[in-house]
Amino acid sequence: MERKYSVILGNLGNTKDRFCGAYKENPSTEEMLEKASKIPYVKGIELVGTWDISEDTADKMNKAFKDLGMTCVSIIPDLFANPLYGKGSYTSKDPAIRRDAIDYTKRMCEAARIMGCKTINIWPGQDGYDYQLTADYEWERNWELEAVVELAEAYPDIDFALEYKPKEPRTHSYMARMGDTLVLAMLANKKNVGVTIDTGHGFEGGEVIGESIVLAKSAGDKLFHMHFNDNFASWDDDMMVGSVHSIEYIEILYWLDRTGYTNWLSMDQYPYREDAAGAIGESIQWLVKFDEMMTANRDKITELIRLGNPIETSKFLRSVL
Amino acid sequence: MERKYSVILGNLGNTKDRFCGAYKENPSTEEMLEKASKIPYVKGIELVGTWDISEDTADKMNKAFKDLGMTCVSIIPDLFANPLYGKGSYTSKDPAIRRDAIDYTKRMCEAARIMGCKTINIWPGQDGYDYQLTADYEWERNWELEAVVELAEAYPDIDFALEYKPKEPRTHSYMARMGDTLVLAMLANKKNVGVTIDTGHGFEGGEVIGESIVLAKSAGDKLFHMHFNDNFASWDDDMMVGSVHSIEYIEILYWLDRTGYTNWLSMDQYPYREDAAGAIGESIQWLVKFDEMMTANRDKITELIRLGNPIETSKFLRSVL
Amino acid sequence: MERKYSVILGNLGNTKDRFCGAYKENPSTEEMLEKASKIPYVKGIELVGTWDISEDTADKMNKAFKDLGMTCVSIIPDLFANPLYGKGSYTSKDPAIRRDAIDYTKRMCEAARIMGCKTINIWPGQDGYDYQLTADYEWERNWELEAVVELAEAYPDIDFALEYKPKEPRTHSYMARMGDTLVLAMLANKKNVGVTIDTGHGFEGGEVIGESIVLAKSAGDKLFHMHFNDNFASWDDDMMVGSVHSIEYIEILYWLDRTGYTNWLSMDQYPYREDAAGAIGESIQWLVKFDEMMTANRDKITELIRLGNPIETSKFLRSVL
Amino acid sequence: MERKYSVILGNLGNTKDRFCGAYKENPSTEEMLEKASKIPYVKGIELVGTWDISEDTADKMNKAFKDLGMTCVSIIPDLFANPLYGKGSYTSKDPAIRRDAIDYTKRMCEAARIMGCKTINIWPGQDGYDYQLTADYEWERNWELEAVVELAEAYPDIDFALEYKPKEPRTHSYMARMGDTLVLAMLANKKNVGVTIDTGHGFEGGEVIGESIVLAKSAGDKLFHMHFNDNFASWDDDMMVGSVHSIEYIEILYWLDRTGYTNWLSMDQYPYREDAAGAIGESIQWLVKFDEMMTANRDKITELIRLGNPIETSKFLRSVL
Repeated sequence: MERKYSVILGNLGNTKDRFCGAYKENPSTEEMLEKASKIPYVKGIELVGTWDISEDTADKMNKAFKDLGMTCVSIIPDLFANPLYGKGSYTSKDPAIRRDAIDYTKRMCEAARIMGCKTINIWPGQDGYDYQLTADYEWERNWELEAVVELAEAYPDIDFALEYKPKEPRTHSYMARMGDTLVLAMLANKKNVGVTIDTGHGFEGGEVIGESIVLAKSAGDKLFHMHFNDNFASWDDDMMVGSVHSIEYIEILYWLDRTGYTNWLSMDQYPYREDAAGAIGESIQWLVKFDEMMTANRDKITELIRLGNPIETSKFLRSVL
Repeated sequence: MERKYSVILGNLGNTKDRFCGAYKENPSTEEMLEKASKIPYVKGIELVGTWDISEDTADKMNKAFKDLGMTCVSIIPDLFANPLYGKGSYTSKDPAIRRDAIDYTKRMCEAARIMGCKTINIWPGQDGYDYQLTADYEWERNWELEAVVELAEAYPDIDFALEYKPKEPRTHSYMARMGDTLVLAMLANKKNVGVTIDTGHGFEGGEVIGESIVLAKSAGDKLFHMHFNDNFASWDDDMMVGSVHSIEYIEILYWLDRTGYTNWLSMDQYPYREDAAGAIGESIQWLVKFDEMMTANRDKITELIRLGNPIETSKFLRSVL
Repeated sequence: MERKYSVILGNLGNTKDRFCGAYKENPSTEEMLEKASKIPYVKGIELVGTWDISEDTADKMNKAFKDLGMTCVSIIPDLFANPLYGKGSYTSKDPAIRRDAIDYTKRMCEAARIMGCKTINIWPGQDGYDYQLTADYEWERNWELEAVVELAEAYPDIDFALEYKPKEPRTHSYMARMGDTLVLAMLANKKNVGVTIDTGHGFEGGEVIGESIVLAKSAGDKLFHMHFNDNFASWDDDMMVGSVHSIEYIEILYWLDRTGYTNWLSMDQYPYREDAAGAIGESIQWLVKFDEMMTANRDKITELIRLGNPIETSKFLRSVL
Repeated sequence: MERKYSVILGNLGNTKDRFCGAYKENPSTEEMLEKASKIPYVKGIELVGTWDISEDTADKMNKAFKDLGMTCVSIIPDLFANPLYGKGSYTSKDPAIRRDAIDYTKRMCEAARIMGCKTINIWPGQDGYDYQLTADYEWERNWELEAVVELAEAYPDIDFALEYKPKEPRTHSYMARMGDTLVLAMLANKKNVGVTIDTGHGFEGGEVIGESIVLAKSAGDKLFHMHFNDNFASWDDDMMVGSVHSIEYIEILYWLDRTGYTNWLSMDQYPYREDAAGAIGESIQWLVKFDEMMTANRDKITELIRLGNPIETSKFLRSVL
């Protein structure tokens, strides 16, 4: 099967952290588009709302995508950089902010329609809490659910892919891991509400992503989107694929196929100190390599996971790595 | 509200780890029952299947409980110590072992009926995997689900409380965290299938237990049972309550009440090197203390979690700790 | 003994993270000084080089400190926000940058002399690496050592307090934990080279700080400075003291006294979403509270740590918390 | 350079954990010796004191080694399985137990002399603490140091290799990480006191082993011995080399050579559910494979770690993995 690789536009620019305002100079949007479209295998691009696109600029951006032959893979509403949402967007204790966050997301849905983009990738990074005994988990988780349901009903033609992450920028997120995010999706009970796996967020949460893919499948074909990167399994380091893990990605690609996932494989990194296009390109090259290893041995892998003998699995891995 | 405190009988005995066969001499079952029943506040006891009880001995054990005035809070089928289940019980790749594990659990259900015990606490510790590319997550997670459904249908009068734990004895468990265990319970879709929270298992999985309690509530009143202990949040150290965390337990007790939990608070520890009854008694004393702090300030806590000002929460905590 | 409490000036301002440029408006330096000096118990302030002070402004700043009755506790050279040092300061692969970093630090030493400040707190946050097989650990660790030795010899009247942290902004830091930082200090073999403990950095590294204090003592009285904050033990959340841990701080204060530490207790937090002075003030209030618990029970604590019975320790803690 | 591979004899037998008494049947010592000696590349064996060897049986064991053509690589005194040392061996609060532990170790030194074995591998697993405020870190760390010094002086012909591990069986060990263990070795100040790296213990402690090797070198050529296994970086899973990490081992072998390490590469695993000889053999096969990758590219690696461009490193790794 043909894999569809894409990138998040902002990954080619923003390089600040809480200490350093900018490790490198940020290119313009036009430069980033140009660079993104030239990375080998890239056929699609994800945009961050407000940063890259608004209702007003969607037409112009759509034209730029057409000129470059790129597909708009998703729009990621900016629910994390705007200080208005600093203590929560859909789960803010202030009803006016919750309303604002939902309405803003709807405007991003309008932009998505203009772009011919099917997926809104929801990462409500500020929805969570820092300190214990400062959050009404019942009320706030319920507001999260209500927002998702309202959006899903208002835009039945759009897929809402919920991206979970255990922590950061809050010490605890409401959409933290595959399991709890699926519970929310099952309670929402909408065909167009599903989940995004960011491989690094999963590693940070102690997940084996292959199993998370199966879990999403079992809950009713709920895997909508994939973000790829790597890390040391304790924080969202947003590194190049393959720089820490290897077997993990072989297993991921196997299970994506077995569960019938045919959507995009999107790169999501923070190349603070590296050439951005080069670092993102490496991730894709690694995935292409792992994919070759996997597809050439698909039946062998199926046999191994049914046999359950770690020594045989080890021998196989020695033969392909 | 009157709290109902209980203990797991085996906690008064077994003290081996993978290095040392026994840190202390193990008392007899009779001695453990005697000691357990004398711990202040204890009104109930949990039994481990095979170790403490079988169909054949249930009558005798029932009499012993009556004599001591104890309630049988749950039976925990031994799905973890029997080498037959060493590579999985309900998820063994061998169908004969899966059948054996289900049938064995049914015999424990029979014992539970004799004991007048309403809860079977299922901790399928060997159901999981150690190495990647050695497990068919789809098949095996499905066998787990099928076993739970078969049991729930066979014993509609028994509550099946699924106890999750991220790892150990396998490097990865199939029932790992609240979220994924709820997904399994929602797919089972049986009124008598719910979840056990072991506070230490939750800490190990990066959970804030107060939020996990709310999550179980939201999925349809799915919190069936509580195991208490403490740890340093990276492993199941099975220490005395209050030895690492404090605020956490205040928050837990608050949310147990707000979600209407009225079942047992059971202690589950491994006092390898300590006087067992003393160590378990300390846990209960701490919970009694935290409970007093919480109940005397219930409205204040509700106010604080709706206010969401960590400084005010900090001031409050300084006033009660 | 009289405790000496201080704060880091920048904690009253900067609130950006890698997603959000500013959660709150930043006050001016004058406003921050004013606010810092009004926090109860505060008698000293730490300054970040470049941000708060330079050789040129040291005279003016010194006057401001005098007017407020504040002591300059330390200067922290900015080796982390300047993109010039983005791939390392003392351990940059570029000798010109290494030279620049040392010379810059010397200018901060000059400023310290003007301020009558005895301590330079060295946190070389960019000295480390992100990816494996990208760093010559031997050469780079040696450059770190050489820089420290050159500074210590050039300013024998200044104490160089090396602040360790396991990671962030790099995925791995060269000064990562108490042990390795002591090895560096022992190799430097200078009376004026020691270590700063940031309690949160220690928690993140899996340390029990009381033991780290003893370790520093054993290596030749090497604990020079203390930064206080709290976190969930997996990341540098920079929260208020007492918001997660409690027993830990009682133990810390006990061991500070037993090892004869008489220097400052400085607060180091990131109150992204809170009133900064309020959040820092809470940390001090918690330390004052823990200090009272400890000093009133010093002999009891000594007895308990020599007895080694966790049940007795638990009883004691229940009596004071 | 010729690598010298060895195994720990007990790895071929013991398979209990705290839940299951035995996952497999344990072979006899003779069977284990037979199996160990037949694993490809194995030229040496490590023995656990008491379990495998005593003063009385050393002669017989020596003959068995000779017959098999094996070298006795190290003796590991059993300071972890004997309940007498359950609350500490060299750091027990009971002076009689401390004396017993030292005297027992001396008897193991005598056995080592008989076996022509140069290394005593000290893993004082019970030296540490479980609960805070139950240990006098100053006294106990000092007893640890005194024991090591006494042993080193009594047996100047024996190398004492101190094996660190962050936790288990205690929640905190006194020899926890490379840094603190080096501090102890530096304070001991004996030529024959150094450190053992167990790769899994290092991963668990958040170490990059390549850097730990350099750290040991910098402290005066203090790396005495190497134990190999793999894990998921949060616990001592004792898995086959290469089952989680790959790049890590390439880097380890590079730095072993660059720092001049010529001692044994010993396998240390817990194949609970696997064929033991097969699982240990896989580890060696992986190391042989990684070693080929490394030695064929040694100069390239040196170039890459001096260049410090993660993209170039990634390209290189894609070419060899």
